[in-house]
Amino acid sequence: MENWFTELHTKDTGISIKVAKPIYTKFSKYQRIDIFQNKTLGRILTLDGLIQLTESDEFIYHEMLVHPSLVVHPTCEEVLVVGGGDGGTAREALKHNQCRIDLVEIDEAVIKACIKFFPTLSLSLSDERVKLFTEDGTKFTKKKKSKYDVIIVDSTDPIGFAKELFRAQFYKSCYSALKENGILVAQSESPILHRGIMKGMYKNLSAIFPTVQFYLVPIPTYPSGLWSFVFCSKKYQPLEFAREVNFTTKYYNLEIHKASFALPNFVKDIFNSD
Amino acid sequence: MENWFTELHTKDTGISIKVAKPIYTKFSKYQRIDIFQNKTLGRILTLDGLIQLTESDEFIYHEMLVHPSLVVHPTCEEVLVVGGGDGGTAREALKHNQCRIDLVEIDEAVIKACIKFFPTLSLSLSDERVKLFTEDGTKFTKKKKSKYDVIIVDSTDPIGFAKELFRAQFYKSCYSALKENGILVAQSESPILHRGIMKGMYKNLSAIFPTVQFYLVPIPTYPSGLWSFVFCSKKYQPLEFAREVNFTTKYYNLEIHKASFALPNFVKDIFNSD
Repeated sequence: MENWFTELHTKDTGISIKVAKPIYTKFSKYQRIDIFQNKTLGRILTLDGLIQLTESDEFIYHEMLVHPSLVVHPTCEEVLVVGGGDGGTAREALKHNQCRIDLVEIDEAVIKACIKFFPTLSLSLSDERVKLFTEDGTKFTKKKKSKYDVIIVDSTDPIGFAKELFRAQFYKSCYSALKENGILVAQSESPILHRGIMKGMYKNLSAIFPTVQFYLVPIPTYPSGLWSFVFCSKKYQPLEFAREVNFTTKYYNLEIHKASFALPNFVKDIFNSD
Repeated sequence: MENWFTELHTKDTGISIKVAKPIYTKFSKYQRIDIFQNKTLGRILTLDGLIQLTESDEFIYHEMLVHPSLVVHPTCEEVLVVGGGDGGTAREALKHNQCRIDLVEIDEAVIKACIKFFPTLSLSLSDERVKLFTEDGTKFTKKKKSKYDVIIVDSTDPIGFAKELFRAQFYKSCYSALKENGILVAQSESPILHRGIMKGMYKNLSAIFPTVQFYLVPIPTYPSGLWSFVFCSKKYQPLEFAREVNFTTKYYNLEIHKASFALPNFVKDIFNSD
């Protein structure tokens, strides 16, 4: 009998992926963690039944979550990653040689599973420039003042405990935890399926940061295949110091950096409507 | 019992869509035509079990297949659409007031089904500026010399009879059917799943047209969610005369026009590899 995994993106649409081999299942304190193998997509991590990453396309998500802000910030040294227990975000941030990273993941079980089953992502977590904290990212951020150049929010969807990472209170903590020229970047869901969430983020973030700009990235295994990120800054504009990077990337390049901030009319409408 | 439609994009991955209501099924001379209703996506047209369009996201495909070339060509009047029996491509082309359209669709049954069930697309087919031909697009094109300003290939995948629309011979006919400053644009499949097809198109088209540039567009209900189009020109560069349009669009705008031609490294690799 064939074993298929289906993730519903709405009540009546979804993605179907054949499970070539189940690899790992654990009920942690926070969520259900599953890892399975698919021939086309490689290993896949799901949390509470929702795809977090596949080996085939995680490079798009992680490169585009990380490089735009680290390329724009001219002197970034101190980075905070909130979430990102798989290590993919830290892996990309470490390509910027001068960066040191505090990574705060609430669920230690995610880190442990990824160290075992996603070594190409999680190897970064053993780098001496990375400090791991397994605690609540909102509480951690609240305690920090003017410490970070860049904060990267690599969160799950705003369901359950991750809801806190989409609230104005958390964004205020991030603002305070950033230096006077700091940048906050966060994954901000699908512009097709989660327009209300993006609108809410825009409203909350615009009340705090002088610059708030969304950018778009195609991620095949995420709901609708089109994902958004938000770039929030105290000082720098997203194209201000954009430059070619001196390391290898599979998705990111300077033209893509600029292009990603161009928004189709139906996405602009999210922010212009009442 | 629930009725779900699943389109496999590879042997072990696919999209699943609940059939709220089957609307139409016909076996034409060329293919199986199905139309069904889904709450989230609206009406959906499939040919031989492959999604051609959904009411929810057809605007992205049709706007981006049509406007880039019609915006760049400074004096476009004569347009040939090969395929496109649903009428969506003609609808967008007609927004450029001065354009007259020859539309050659091989399968009359597709036209008839779409006239009945997709009026927001097929209304264009009754416009007096559109001439309909129900015949083989390759043969039609072969007979024309220096007639068109822009040729738009709105084809199905290169399977069965549509294979001809991906061959060097057809591209040569298009070249001859275009005026001396003509532009050919074609849908060119997924840069993630159909890299071999894109590479073949690039090779064939580059041997004929001095300018061949691919551009990318996210289309949620197409395989991998990321689609490509190719812009081939005798004279004009794709950004040369790009300008804002004087009609309403939901996806297309001038920034998007420019941004779509930026390619991620893994897409550039398709054309650079041996």
